[in-house]
Amino acid sequence: MFKLLRRSVKLIEFVSIGPMTRKTRMRLVGTFIIGTGVSTYLSFPSVSAAKKFNSSLYLAEPITDIEHILANEADMKTRMELFVMKVQADFVRALENEENFGKKFEIDRWKRREGGGGITCVLQDGDVFEKAGVNISVVSGVLPPGAIQQMRSRGKNFADGALQFFAAGVSAVIHPRNPMVPTIHFNYRYFEVVDRKGEKQWWFGGGTDLTPYYLNEDDAIHFHTSLKAACDEHDETYYGKFKKWCDEYFRITHRGECRGVGGIFFDDIDTPSQNEAFQFISSCANAVIPSYLPLVRKHKNDEYGAKQREWQLLRRGRYVEFNLIYDRGTKFGLYTPGARFESILMSLPLLARWEYMHEPSPESPEGKLMKVLKEPRDWLGLESAKK
Amino acid sequence: MFKLLRRSVKLIEFVSIGPMTRKTRMRLVGTFIIGTGVSTYLSFPSVSAAKKFNSSLYLAEPITDIEHILANEADMKTRMELFVMKVQADFVRALENEENFGKKFEIDRWKRREGGGGITCVLQDGDVFEKAGVNISVVSGVLPPGAIQQMRSRGKNFADGALQFFAAGVSAVIHPRNPMVPTIHFNYRYFEVVDRKGEKQWWFGGGTDLTPYYLNEDDAIHFHTSLKAACDEHDETYYGKFKKWCDEYFRITHRGECRGVGGIFFDDIDTPSQNEAFQFISSCANAVIPSYLPLVRKHKNDEYGAKQREWQLLRRGRYVEFNLIYDRGTKFGLYTPGARFESILMSLPLLARWEYMHEPSPESPEGKLMKVLKEPRDWLGLESAKK
Repeated sequence: MFKLLRRSVKLIEFVSIGPMTRKTRMRLVGTFIIGTGVSTYLSFPSVSAAKKFNSSLYLAEPITDIEHILANEADMKTRMELFVMKVQADFVRALENEENFGKKFEIDRWKRREGGGGITCVLQDGDVFEKAGVNISVVSGVLPPGAIQQMRSRGKNFADGALQFFAAGVSAVIHPRNPMVPTIHFNYRYFEVVDRKGEKQWWFGGGTDLTPYYLNEDDAIHFHTSLKAACDEHDETYYGKFKKWCDEYFRITHRGECRGVGGIFFDDIDTPSQNEAFQFISSCANAVIPSYLPLVRKHKNDEYGAKQREWQLLRRGRYVEFNLIYDRGTKFGLYTPGARFESILMSLPLLARWEYMHEPSPESPEGKLMKVLKEPRDWLGLESAKK
Repeated sequence: MFKLLRRSVKLIEFVSIGPMTRKTRMRLVGTFIIGTGVSTYLSFPSVSAAKKFNSSLYLAEPITDIEHILANEADMKTRMELFVMKVQADFVRALENEENFGKKFEIDRWKRREGGGGITCVLQDGDVFEKAGVNISVVSGVLPPGAIQQMRSRGKNFADGALQFFAAGVSAVIHPRNPMVPTIHFNYRYFEVVDRKGEKQWWFGGGTDLTPYYLNEDDAIHFHTSLKAACDEHDETYYGKFKKWCDEYFRITHRGECRGVGGIFFDDIDTPSQNEAFQFISSCANAVIPSYLPLVRKHKNDEYGAKQREWQLLRRGRYVEFNLIYDRGTKFGLYTPGARFESILMSLPLLARWEYMHEPSPESPEGKLMKVLKEPRDWLGLESAKK
């Protein structure tokens, strides 16, 4: 029986009881097995529930109790939880398909004592992907003061007193081995905050961005074209605004350079309706595979040498600088009590390099990338078309 | 003539004019040469000045104009500038002596448009030291609002309005190649703040700490014994207090572990007198070489394999996490307008590694280090002696 199943999923109960006891905090409380190659069903509390829930779409059991999910199918919390799980499973399977020697993601399902949990999928040391992480988390509880302050500074108007929150999101960072294949990152999330009087606010946020090590203009144009198509389905003003926001957000300020060639980035989307906003982020998330996988297939067998590898590691050092110094999600995550830091830091590359005063010559392929990172380009010629 | 001189010193003018133009910000405005193997003199405005200033003690010309220095020898600003330059030169020469194939530090002297400058010395890819940085900076100007707030939160009582500051310091991070040789970091600094009414406050800060990759108890005891001796010369309560402060400061909070086996750390030292406080930090800085160089000599030829190298790189990943997420100096530096980020980030290792959920077995040599990082030890048995 065991041999027929492709892999096991570890269930990890993640209980925070203070900073000194990380080791005791992570306890393996049980193991359950699901098949992913064939359609199998999880064991459910009732037979009727089992009939309605197709577990083959996902990599592990949902975070929320299945009976609760089936009883609340129309609630955005449920729709988003199942959606991020589906995005995760599709992306994990698409990436595994590119590996030549059958390397698989490790799947950790974990619970957070303060409420909710997540599913963290990591593939390390593959032949195509050096380190790839695809996370979902579905968490709820009382909003920490730092988060309230940060949201208020963004213009959220909350009543005083404790605020309950719910957040469901998917995020991924893929660091390929071949320096000719770019790194991709995406994150799509849904937030609900309820004040003491029961008044609810909700919004969506997210984005997808590309970080090449060598500039390939066709790749950048293909990537931006896919994202623009996803945006245009919903609002023709979105791509332009969110492309600019992305260039501004993913900026390594102290170096005066962007992390990569951009993409889209947005937050606080709460119009035109909850359903339409959900459809919009669904289109964006569904555009990840067609925007990225063709680039992986195109370049994963490109030739490269030690020089290109070294440059890739230097650029990964910049990636680490951005994520640890500037990224709101990483900082917010690490400062949140009970945060699962292993899931937050799966975004860091397997290897990174820092050299003092490294500056490629402007005419070199490395220098050409630097020029684009210092002066973000209008990949689809939209600004020039306006004139 | 050129061949007789051991190396050249680049003079870099570092002028900040906004985030987009890093390249234009760094301009080589001149080159001057000093000998370090033989006693030579810099070219001075006057012969009498030349007689009084022994340039062979240092690696480059001071940041402050030499005539000003000679006219203000008793001022703590002058004493500190010359002292940090001397500490830098001694440490750089001691480290170069350990290299087997004559690898030398690169020396960059730079100016800051807002006032002052620094001398950054970096040795990269040596056979004993993989990456070593020894910096001094002597800067002055108007204190940024963030810095004022941070100092007030530490208890400084400043008048309202603009505050002029002067800061001189030396800091170093040494990442050796052999995983059996620990990384060392130290920083000693002097601060002056003057308010609009001309009222002056001054204080010293600093510390030295050790980050081994494998635990060697004798090394840790030797290191702490040297630091304690330096402290005890001035105040017998210092070592105990500053050892504890060090364990608390160099803590990777999200992982619940210390960066290394500690050392001493302190700030806001303004007693018993300015001269005695200076003597105290001088003793600490002078203890760096005897506390560390014996460990380098003892272990630089130790045998190690791929497994030990990999563990070293994983621990260097933790070093990067501490420096970029928590270190006050790094954050303050990177957020300061006109900051020379290459000098701040020279503390990062040449290579670092991140693996998902890496946890050594408690019985392994790696696990034994982890135990000490999670539960800082009383290396000199002072707590048990009290009982």
